[in-house]
Amino acid sequence: MRIPKESLSPAIFRERRDRLGGVFERKKLDAYFFSSVSDLYYLTGFHSEGFYGLATAKDTWLFASALLAGQVRENAPGCRFVIGKRLSVAVADLVKKHRLKRIGFDPDQLNFRLGDVLRKKGLAPHPNPLEELRIIKGEEELIRLRKACQITAQTVDWIKPRVRAGMTEKSLAWAIEREFVRRGAHGVGFDLIAAVGANTSLPHHIPGETPLKPNSPVLFDIGCRVGAYRSDLTRSFFFGKITSNYRRVYRVVESAQRAGIETVRPGVTGGQVDAATRGVITKAGYGRTFVHSTGHGVGIDIHEPPWIRPKSSDVLAPNMILTVEPGIYLAGRFGVRIEDTLRVTADGHERLTRP
Amino acid sequence: MRIPKESLSPAIFRERRDRLGGVFERKKLDAYFFSSVSDLYYLTGFHSEGFYGLATAKDTWLFASALLAGQVRENAPGCRFVIGKRLSVAVADLVKKHRLKRIGFDPDQLNFRLGDVLRKKGLAPHPNPLEELRIIKGEEELIRLRKACQITAQTVDWIKPRVRAGMTEKSLAWAIEREFVRRGAHGVGFDLIAAVGANTSLPHHIPGETPLKPNSPVLFDIGCRVGAYRSDLTRSFFFGKITSNYRRVYRVVESAQRAGIETVRPGVTGGQVDAATRGVITKAGYGRTFVHSTGHGVGIDIHEPPWIRPKSSDVLAPNMILTVEPGIYLAGRFGVRIEDTLRVTADGHERLTRP
Repeated sequence: MRIPKESLSPAIFRERRDRLGGVFERKKLDAYFFSSVSDLYYLTGFHSEGFYGLATAKDTWLFASALLAGQVRENAPGCRFVIGKRLSVAVADLVKKHRLKRIGFDPDQLNFRLGDVLRKKGLAPHPNPLEELRIIKGEEELIRLRKACQITAQTVDWIKPRVRAGMTEKSLAWAIEREFVRRGAHGVGFDLIAAVGANTSLPHHIPGETPLKPNSPVLFDIGCRVGAYRSDLTRSFFFGKITSNYRRVYRVVESAQRAGIETVRPGVTGGQVDAATRGVITKAGYGRTFVHSTGHGVGIDIHEPPWIRPKSSDVLAPNMILTVEPGIYLAGRFGVRIEDTLRVTADGHERLTRP
Repeated sequence: MRIPKESLSPAIFRERRDRLGGVFERKKLDAYFFSSVSDLYYLTGFHSEGFYGLATAKDTWLFASALLAGQVRENAPGCRFVIGKRLSVAVADLVKKHRLKRIGFDPDQLNFRLGDVLRKKGLAPHPNPLEELRIIKGEEELIRLRKACQITAQTVDWIKPRVRAGMTEKSLAWAIEREFVRRGAHGVGFDLIAAVGANTSLPHHIPGETPLKPNSPVLFDIGCRVGAYRSDLTRSFFFGKITSNYRRVYRVVESAQRAGIETVRPGVTGGQVDAATRGVITKAGYGRTFVHSTGHGVGIDIHEPPWIRPKSSDVLAPNMILTVEPGIYLAGRFGVRIEDTLRVTADGHERLTRP
């Protein structure tokens, strides 16, 4: 999923590169090597596989093959370009020429082969200095995130009354995708989940040919993309005559989500938000069935910091975006998950996944 | 893009694991650690991020979190499972227990952090032993590849007479995606390219809001997915009154593609196929504008071996699948690329991208 030529002003990307320079000073880094599509997009405005970047406090060099030369030059104004040169040689030349000493790379993003080569050129694995910039969303990012979340909430309201017995999970997922695009999204934000019946008990179920039967549970975990920015929302409901067991479980998850959301404000850690949802579910006796974390940040990546999971020390701050999505999964029977995407405000939170 | 529960028989995946054992003996490997979604799918039938595998000649262990436990058990019959254990510890335990000595991992697939940890546990980067199995397609794989290629060829024939001035690249790409699904594909095979006007001169253009003007070039580089298998096809044409320059360039690319396709048979190398297309383009004076390789294999991954590029020593053999896709790109003016997906037969080749 690639992003077309950016409508954002080049000044936004230049400003991000300048702010990264400030992080370098604090972290005592001379330079950082970037390899992830999302990081490179955030810094340059060009969204594509197949190119790399080396940023110093002053300059950002982009390394690309002749194949991408035209596009990278056009889409990343203000950067410097190294075209068609062997990557390790090009990096080593810059290291030498600019006498760069402390140069990091992201060990979770770079593949082993390239990391091993770059280590021999004097680079070293180091926490990603862009993380602290990307975690706080700017005004232009919030516009896109809001729109993505709103379209998603509207679409779930659109699909629910259209759900009929006999529809397959795949056909439901595809109907949602089409509706996203019709409402102005640029595509899906991730592989959509539509699950029916016992499949709802698999947290990461893949939509298949299972048809919806009367009187059975349904789960939608869906999100779209506006520009480079994503949304994430889950709704669970019972199609037909609800069972008392489903209702009981639903209410526990609903209470857990509410408890989690209520904690969301600046200064609180991801671990505290997780403890709030998990506490409700554990107290109700379903602790062992809540097999995933409470949530995650959302932005250019669908899963990014802040991490909302046990012991997470990520501290919430205004204009962070995160999900709160507790769930209970009863193997072979049904699962319930409820998820919203929130923005941290100056003194609390705002739910973005509203129609 | 994830694949729903596999319709293929578990026996197919068991047989692949058995054959991998044979490769291990020849390569003197005790085990191999797999981390790519495609490799793990090929071996197990389960297509998902978030799990890993260690295969020996006798057994395949899959490592997953509790989140994926239900799905991995259900979708990967015949494998052994290690659930919720720290990956490096779980691997080290197996290495010790089974006295595994020579254990490889794929340095192009594994991230640096995990590779560095596994190296300390005695594993080492090693060419991927699955490559020689995956490169030759079996009957069940060919059924899916044929269908994906046929749908793609039918769809390009469907869209061409529907192209109108004023349509944007994005709207064209979306129309193609919908038609793929309507014809029975499970989705797109990669990010579709629809380019109009001067954008056709960017080989990897990303469809945007540019509308088609009368009397201008169009390029579609499209493919769909059937099950886990993909297709790849490019068509270039002039919308409106063709210019003599476009016609001249088109004929060169057409001749180059024909020359390349004619070389495709068992025993020929990827380098030889590349030389055939490149020779025609170079002779016509456009050599410097052909900025990419002639082609690539297609299967579970859209780009996989055999590599059809200068000096490639990959030797073609029956039931390999590859593209032949020369192009000429005149910056700021127009580009022409023609691409088909072929199967290598016992004594030549068969074009799969036919309606």
